[in-house]
Amino acid sequence: MADRAEIETFKNPHPRRDYVIEHHVHEFTSMCPKSGQPDFGTILISYVAKATCLELKSLKLYLQGFRNEGIFYEDVTNVILDDLVSSCDPKWMLVESTWSVRGGIHSVVRAQHGQPPPQP
Amino acid sequence: MADRAEIETFKNPHPRRDYVIEHHVHEFTSMCPKSGQPDFGTILISYVAKATCLELKSLKLYLQGFRNEGIFYEDVTNVILDDLVSSCDPKWMLVESTWSVRGGIHSVVRAQHGQPPPQP
Amino acid sequence: MADRAEIETFKNPHPRRDYVIEHHVHEFTSMCPKSGQPDFGTILISYVAKATCLELKSLKLYLQGFRNEGIFYEDVTNVILDDLVSSCDPKWMLVESTWSVRGGIHSVVRAQHGQPPPQP
Amino acid sequence: MADRAEIETFKNPHPRRDYVIEHHVHEFTSMCPKSGQPDFGTILISYVAKATCLELKSLKLYLQGFRNEGIFYEDVTNVILDDLVSSCDPKWMLVESTWSVRGGIHSVVRAQHGQPPPQP
Amino acid sequence: MADRAEIETFKNPHPRRDYVIEHHVHEFTSMCPKSGQPDFGTILISYVAKATCLELKSLKLYLQGFRNEGIFYEDVTNVILDDLVSSCDPKWMLVESTWSVRGGIHSVVRAQHGQPPPQP
Amino acid sequence: MADRAEIETFKNPHPRRDYVIEHHVHEFTSMCPKSGQPDFGTILISYVAKATCLELKSLKLYLQGFRNEGIFYEDVTNVILDDLVSSCDPKWMLVESTWSVRGGIHSVVRAQHGQPPPQP
Amino acid sequence: MADRAEIETFKNPHPRRDYVIEHHVHEFTSMCPKSGQPDFGTILISYVAKATCLELKSLKLYLQGFRNEGIFYEDVTNVILDDLVSSCDPKWMLVESTWSVRGGIHSVVRAQHGQPPPQP
Amino acid sequence: MADRAEIETFKNPHPRRDYVIEHHVHEFTSMCPKSGQPDFGTILISYVAKATCLELKSLKLYLQGFRNEGIFYEDVTNVILDDLVSSCDPKWMLVESTWSVRGGIHSVVRAQHGQPPPQP
Amino acid sequence: MADRAEIETFKNPHPRRDYVIEHHVHEFTSMCPKSGQPDFGTILISYVAKATCLELKSLKLYLQGFRNEGIFYEDVTNVILDDLVSSCDPKWMLVESTWSVRGGIHSVVRAQHGQPPPQP
Amino acid sequence: MADRAEIETFKNPHPRRDYVIEHHVHEFTSMCPKSGQPDFGTILISYVAKATCLELKSLKLYLQGFRNEGIFYEDVTNVILDDLVSSCDPKWMLVESTWSVRGGIHSVVRAQHGQPPPQP
Repeated sequence: MADRAEIETFKNPHPRRDYVIEHHVHEFTSMCPKSGQPDFGTILISYVAKATCLELKSLKLYLQGFRNEGIFYEDVTNVILDDLVSSCDPKWMLVESTWSVRGGIHSVVRAQHGQPPPQP
Repeated sequence: MADRAEIETFKNPHPRRDYVIEHHVHEFTSMCPKSGQPDFGTILISYVAKATCLELKSLKLYLQGFRNEGIFYEDVTNVILDDLVSSCDPKWMLVESTWSVRGGIHSVVRAQHGQPPPQP
Repeated sequence: MADRAEIETFKNPHPRRDYVIEHHVHEFTSMCPKSGQPDFGTILISYVAKATCLELKSLKLYLQGFRNEGIFYEDVTNVILDDLVSSCDPKWMLVESTWSVRGGIHSVVRAQHGQPPPQP
Repeated sequence: MADRAEIETFKNPHPRRDYVIEHHVHEFTSMCPKSGQPDFGTILISYVAKATCLELKSLKLYLQGFRNEGIFYEDVTNVILDDLVSSCDPKWMLVESTWSVRGGIHSVVRAQHGQPPPQP
Repeated sequence: MADRAEIETFKNPHPRRDYVIEHHVHEFTSMCPKSGQPDFGTILISYVAKATCLELKSLKLYLQGFRNEGIFYEDVTNVILDDLVSSCDPKWMLVESTWSVRGGIHSVVRAQHGQPPPQP
Repeated sequence: MADRAEIETFKNPHPRRDYVIEHHVHEFTSMCPKSGQPDFGTILISYVAKATCLELKSLKLYLQGFRNEGIFYEDVTNVILDDLVSSCDPKWMLVESTWSVRGGIHSVVRAQHGQPPPQP
Repeated sequence: MADRAEIETFKNPHPRRDYVIEHHVHEFTSMCPKSGQPDFGTILISYVAKATCLELKSLKLYLQGFRNEGIFYEDVTNVILDDLVSSCDPKWMLVESTWSVRGGIHSVVRAQHGQPPPQP
Repeated sequence: MADRAEIETFKNPHPRRDYVIEHHVHEFTSMCPKSGQPDFGTILISYVAKATCLELKSLKLYLQGFRNEGIFYEDVTNVILDDLVSSCDPKWMLVESTWSVRGGIHSVVRAQHGQPPPQP
Repeated sequence: MADRAEIETFKNPHPRRDYVIEHHVHEFTSMCPKSGQPDFGTILISYVAKATCLELKSLKLYLQGFRNEGIFYEDVTNVILDDLVSSCDPKWMLVESTWSVRGGIHSVVRAQHGQPPPQP
Repeated sequence: MADRAEIETFKNPHPRRDYVIEHHVHEFTSMCPKSGQPDFGTILISYVAKATCLELKSLKLYLQGFRNEGIFYEDVTNVILDDLVSSCDPKWMLVESTWSVRGGIHSVVRAQHGQPPPQP
């Protein structure tokens, strides 16, 4: 896990308003630590920024860093949440991973940090 | 019901955070105890783990154990919930079964254990 | 309305847990009392059982009993709810009927008995 | 089968051009001659008229005449084709019936009279 | 606006239960008062009746009365709500109009009268 | 039928290549000559131009001219084809009208002029 | 493969017309001969009858006979085609099996007997 | 940002009722300030008016003013909200922008002003 | 039209086999030469290469060159076809443009060069 | 390209009938040789076997071998076709790759070997 790309941030252009930013990652792949087979999934990152926002290109490179890493669904979801919370210190963040079918079963894992904002 | 596979668990990698794990089982089949005909359905298992998580392969084998068992929709949904709660002792668990059409009617049964987590 | 089939019930296999049972009836037809034309619709029956559950085959036959009966949308929805509540005495029940297009308009009628259970 | 409504026709307003007329019947019901249970389906009628066109309201009433008649899928499709060909003498006609699920199987029956027109 | 059809009502067959009646109007057209061009939309009418229900055929004729009337989206939605509330005096009513695309934009207007019922 | 707008045309910018132009008209309404009720439909116009192309705005105004005209489905489809063929003299033209549900039936009428081009 | 149910047939009610009969089997399951795991799929049976038609209930029971049989996708599709051709001697028959995802891949196998009829 | 069109308003025709107006903008394009590449998105504007409503044509022209402007997703969403709040002073307003895929990721930004109205 | 980007090509890696390459362009915008309003559409480019293939990034930049150009649907489709045929000299090429709704009508224009390959 | 897995085959169980076998590969990833970024796509393999069929598990492993290989869309489609033709010598084979969006464009490449079978 040593060489995952740095996540960059930029200054939140409207810090006085609590607004929601969502990034829907259509293409995510990592390896199953048990079988050594590739896993394919999608990732939703939803958050309310404080002072900084996630820069999109570095986010993409960071997520590509899992491509050849063996890691469980439950683990990778929480690791991404921890890493993104560290890098941009949001008021609230949700990470949801949805995985393609394995053995007739597909899985979804959802982890959040902080209090979700009121829904419009 | 004697020879259903053992459900294995593994250590929750992030036990200090309440996060949701969902397994969507696309292929489930059991037998109707009345007519002896096969029933086909899908099963959603959604839960918040405490110390252990459900291991996916043993979960699949456990569910395959119903293939030739005669059991009602209402019963099998609750039996699965009871068995999974016993094996991994979750903070919360929902089991929802959705059944294919019989006589122009399809049925859904939803049972849960514990308090559902706040939705993001 | 004299010859509608009897609705049978069976013993709730898990009476100590409040769980939801839904029957989605894809094929329902009755007659318009005004025009004498057939009406086509679908019916959703959702409930939390107390001591007894609705038996599916007798439910189907009961609903077929409306095939040649002239009755308004608003009326049939409430009549089905009343009849099913009488036969299985649920903690909660919802009956929702959805009707096909007439004169460029389609209608939905929703009636319930008791307090709805908390949603997962 | 004695009391099925008469199918009326009207004069083809553009008889010199071969054009296609389709009627998609969303609501059709008859009875299974074996089980006595109702069957539900949809009917597509597609044709190229010669001198006369099918009048829509009488077509609807004609099709409602099957409501309480026991007849197989294969039979009713051909009977409708025969009856409509008799009443409007088209250059070409297709009748396609699509039936709802019975025992995990749904069926489609397609019969035609004459040569189909070239597709655009 | 002089010649809009009268809205008829009929006696609520189950006045002691608060149940929801929805009419989804697929075909609505009026005129833009500014450009003189036709507007096309759909209308949802959802309500809980007190003593009387809206009669469907007269509702259809009433709505057809807007066909050649020049009126804004925001206005027609509120006018329909006012007229229907006057004619059937419901406990609650929602009128929602959805309009087809104009200049790359489609609009939705939603107005209600009274307190919405608890959702099942 | 006297005051239907003139259909304008413009010079085909690429007359040496046979290419296909389709206009999908989402909003069309006329009146049923029998019941006096409004009909709603969509119209597809597909053609290969010779020297001139249909101008879109005048086409829209021409089609709006049917708004208060009583005319059958079969007739209006052929009338539109005749009028458009007169105005732009295409190598090939197809007019297809699709009508909303009446009495549980929706209809489609398809008429063409000339030889359809080879499909890609 | 010894105990698969007999396929019954009934007399083709309209033998003088070549018409198409399709049965879409939504629920099919057999076993993988290699892994011993269950396979889930759907089967389309499309045919033009000569003297006899496939009886639907016995067809369903025949297909249920594969439930605990280990057989490859390619094999079972051809075996079903051979068995059905033997039992009803059609002018033409197509059997198409569609299988659920295994290892990120889903498969379809299509086999036919005789000449397909002209499409409408 | 100098030459963006003026947003016009008109008098709210029903100011005594709190009702919701939504404009779904299907076509929005601006430029990425970093790469200079065009961005494509859709914009939802939902609000409850006080004294004035947004005029649709000037709204469209205002939004077209971003066509050649370099601006981030997070910024443009908040700028539109600020500009629209200034021009019509609503009780509540939501602006939601949804952007097309860039690098396998699509983004959504949601900002609101004031308290959302109770949902029907 | 002076400053549209150069279209680059690369060597066809398998020139001895006739295979089909399709590029589906989701985001295309130009200006209406009559109204000065922006047009939005999608473009499909499908071709069989001879010696060279279209390079994707330069294709994207070339198409962005229409962003502020006033040009009719029929014209731009043929211009793109001419330009791409010039740059890569294909055995066959189809350009299909699909435009968003204007005045309740959306349009599609389809032009091709050479003989289409046999469909699989 | 040295270490791609061997593709295994098994004996065609019904070699005397020409039937179609399709494998739809939902998860495929390789690298862009220009940008070094990962590409994601799906692959359809459709063929008529002669003496041998493709073994599914080895096919999956073979395709996983492209995970870290830099190769163009056009090239990988033809390489897969060549490799699969070499390993199972089919009567006919089609390989179709569909790629996810890059720069607002998604691409499809389709290559075949031999004569396609008649479609049912």
